[in-house]
Amino acid sequence: MPKTHIEQHFSGSETVRDVVIGMSDGLTVPFALAAGLAGAVDSNFVVLVAGLAEVVAGSIAMGLGGYLAARTEADHYRAELLREEREVRELPQAETEEVRAVFRQYGLEGAALEQATEAVTRSPQVWVRFMMKEELGLEAPDPRRALRSALTIGGSYVAGGAIPLLPYLLPLSIEQSLLVSAGVTLLALALFGTFKARFTGLPWLKGAWQTVLVGGLAAGAAYGLARLVSGFGH
Amino acid sequence: MPKTHIEQHFSGSETVRDVVIGMSDGLTVPFALAAGLAGAVDSNFVVLVAGLAEVVAGSIAMGLGGYLAARTEADHYRAELLREEREVRELPQAETEEVRAVFRQYGLEGAALEQATEAVTRSPQVWVRFMMKEELGLEAPDPRRALRSALTIGGSYVAGGAIPLLPYLLPLSIEQSLLVSAGVTLLALALFGTFKARFTGLPWLKGAWQTVLVGGLAAGAAYGLARLVSGFGH
Repeated sequence: MPKTHIEQHFSGSETVRDVVIGMSDGLTVPFALAAGLAGAVDSNFVVLVAGLAEVVAGSIAMGLGGYLAARTEADHYRAELLREEREVRELPQAETEEVRAVFRQYGLEGAALEQATEAVTRSPQVWVRFMMKEELGLEAPDPRRALRSALTIGGSYVAGGAIPLLPYLLPLSIEQSLLVSAGVTLLALALFGTFKARFTGLPWLKGAWQTVLVGGLAAGAAYGLARLVSGFGH
Repeated sequence: MPKTHIEQHFSGSETVRDVVIGMSDGLTVPFALAAGLAGAVDSNFVVLVAGLAEVVAGSIAMGLGGYLAARTEADHYRAELLREEREVRELPQAETEEVRAVFRQYGLEGAALEQATEAVTRSPQVWVRFMMKEELGLEAPDPRRALRSALTIGGSYVAGGAIPLLPYLLPLSIEQSLLVSAGVTLLALALFGTFKARFTGLPWLKGAWQTVLVGGLAAGAAYGLARLVSGFGH
């Protein structure tokens, strides 16, 4: 999934990032599922129910899953922090050597190395923070973020999923609904890709093209497979 | 989605992490979708086609989306690297001050601060690597990882999705298929949660309980909503 990597080079706020995470999948998967089903069953109603079920399931999996993962991350940070605090107290020699190793890696030696190491190890708080960042690559997570993040991701998934599904509510044949759904969703994906590109540093045209490609391929493959399978089933 | 946060405190290999990312959603969403549809339509065939369409769409969205995100990340790293290299050449004073600010934050001052700064800025390579890590928090991504990661995530999604869907192939009524699917999938989620807990530092029972909770809630909500909607539709 895209979310894993987006995070690292995201320059927007965390809320924008959560909206992108939720909407990215919300626009793509319900769209592809509805397109796939529309190729196999002749019922707007079945497509709608399946789409709704998917949106509910996907938003809970992403929102609640994200909430629990953030809680685990906070627990993990606390556990590592306690461990470092204990190690600094109980094994100061080994921990001092670890500080020295970090500075040595940046080219420090001799008196400069000793003085820098001494400066960091002078305050237990600075020492522990140094080890958390340099040795473990961990920074303190925001405890209130978990719930807000879960709701933002889940809500964005629902908002994204509504776009491909609403056309199946119109008084149209299944083929017509599919065409309208594909049209508005591919347009929404292009706009969304442009928006996303602003935060990932991608040129906007490439951003638009990539989200349209992922959504289009997913929907096309789902449609093709569903048609193939329904050929056997009927 | 869970993936975002898992990454940061994951102690397993990156392949294990990709398997967890793909299988986590693969077990949950197709299961919940199938359960939801089973509550609304009386046809194993429709549930199967919808499930297949979802698995195809989800694995492409996660796999291809992840691939493109990893490529963007690599591009971003390269662009930032070039920028830092240029800044170190063209604005050495400002960049030296930034190195000094990092060390100052760790309590260095006076001669130790100057010597440490001098040691880092002596080699342009060390200097640039220092700025990438300390200022931007970026580490060099593995260029070959993108494709392998995409295939691992996509494949794990398909493998996870097969578990809840296969029972609908059995010669059973839709209610029986749903019960078998729920049974094997909740068991698989518990096993998977135990496995995942080993890598996130969670106690295994809590890990098992959390994945079962997310999957069960998603499926229960999808089932409930689909039943509700199908009450209006028929």
